[in-house]
Amino acid sequence: MPSEAFSARLPETDRTRHRRLREQGSLERADLDAILDAGFVCHLGVVVEGRPLVVPTVYGRDERQLYVHGSVASRSLAGDLPVCVTVTHIDGLVLARSVFEHGVNYRSAVIHGDARKVTDPEEKLEGLRRLTEHATPGQWSYARRPNRKELAATTLLALSLEEASVKIRTGAPDDGDGPDAELGLWAGVLPLTSVWGEPVADPALPSDTAVPGHIARRAGTRHG
Amino acid sequence: MPSEAFSARLPETDRTRHRRLREQGSLERADLDAILDAGFVCHLGVVVEGRPLVVPTVYGRDERQLYVHGSVASRSLAGDLPVCVTVTHIDGLVLARSVFEHGVNYRSAVIHGDARKVTDPEEKLEGLRRLTEHATPGQWSYARRPNRKELAATTLLALSLEEASVKIRTGAPDDGDGPDAELGLWAGVLPLTSVWGEPVADPALPSDTAVPGHIARRAGTRHG
Repeated sequence: MPSEAFSARLPETDRTRHRRLREQGSLERADLDAILDAGFVCHLGVVVEGRPLVVPTVYGRDERQLYVHGSVASRSLAGDLPVCVTVTHIDGLVLARSVFEHGVNYRSAVIHGDARKVTDPEEKLEGLRRLTEHATPGQWSYARRPNRKELAATTLLALSLEEASVKIRTGAPDDGDGPDAELGLWAGVLPLTSVWGEPVADPALPSDTAVPGHIARRAGTRHG
Repeated sequence: MPSEAFSARLPETDRTRHRRLREQGSLERADLDAILDAGFVCHLGVVVEGRPLVVPTVYGRDERQLYVHGSVASRSLAGDLPVCVTVTHIDGLVLARSVFEHGVNYRSAVIHGDARKVTDPEEKLEGLRRLTEHATPGQWSYARRPNRKELAATTLLALSLEEASVKIRTGAPDDGDGPDAELGLWAGVLPLTSVWGEPVADPALPSDTAVPGHIARRAGTRHG
């Protein structure tokens, strides 16, 4: 892995060049980082016997790579695994005058690369720390950490964040200045928001167990 | 395509058999239908030059097949395309006593098959109707429908709903009756909910344009 920092611009490759909707593409690494930091579940794509397989799984990251919980890859992974990891946030429905101009406001990151199975116990522990803290900040120092046996039973993949394609759509429909604007139809966006609810205690818990602050504080805040 | 109705039980195949987390797998077609009906964005996986590619896109369905907006496949699709379409709803974080038992409450459907490019204009129109109504019930009879040119410019894929894998996780963490329960830590679920917001009118719209009821009624309701 190169030691220099990634450039603030994402590299344009055959896989990341924006073909169809150039206006929606971003090559800013800051946009990639923001999309990754806003979520905790990705869709991991692999090829199994020549066919695609896409499964949801959790992830975390550091500056240079994504850590992905990789039970899908645990079957028989020798060497690096070609993967595509996609993180998507849906921000709303774009309701245009014409069906053709309908769409979705969204932010998505598509990361291409060869995933490496993390085998070094120290790196695995650090990867799981990143993953845990990514989903629930504060939880790594609160919960019981993995022991040697649990660590061995966990499959963790690492994927470089070097090659990624970012797409973002925001705002109103695109047919507000065309002939369809004369139709007199309502057009706009129906926003969609994800919100964290109130913590629900495990029924097995003694009733006087306090919800820790790092979890309680999240209730009512926005996710995505 | 066979003319008889699908069985209420999903077929168990090498691809859909639940290997790791049997308790989370469902073979009920009703569970598949409910997961599909609760969302409108899927992750479409294809193989491009031997590597996986996963992109978010919108879908609709009838009783037997999924219709997927397939610009990803528009490049050069001759014949059927091996795809994997995954729909995931995230319901909350499962915060256990141990990091190892952490997880996510979710519902996901993974559909395997060979997608067919819809070419017949009548079927394409019907597929787009399903897709439009799936995302926004009532919109097909409100918005201007696709004309011949727009129809030709749209790539629509059809995928049989025959082979699918459904996984559902609900409820509390699994370590409430193990030795970690003695640690005195809080454990439970932090729920995550998606909610439709108030419609945001296109700024290009005359200010007296009323929001139609089928859109206005959705504000404040739950999605997912």
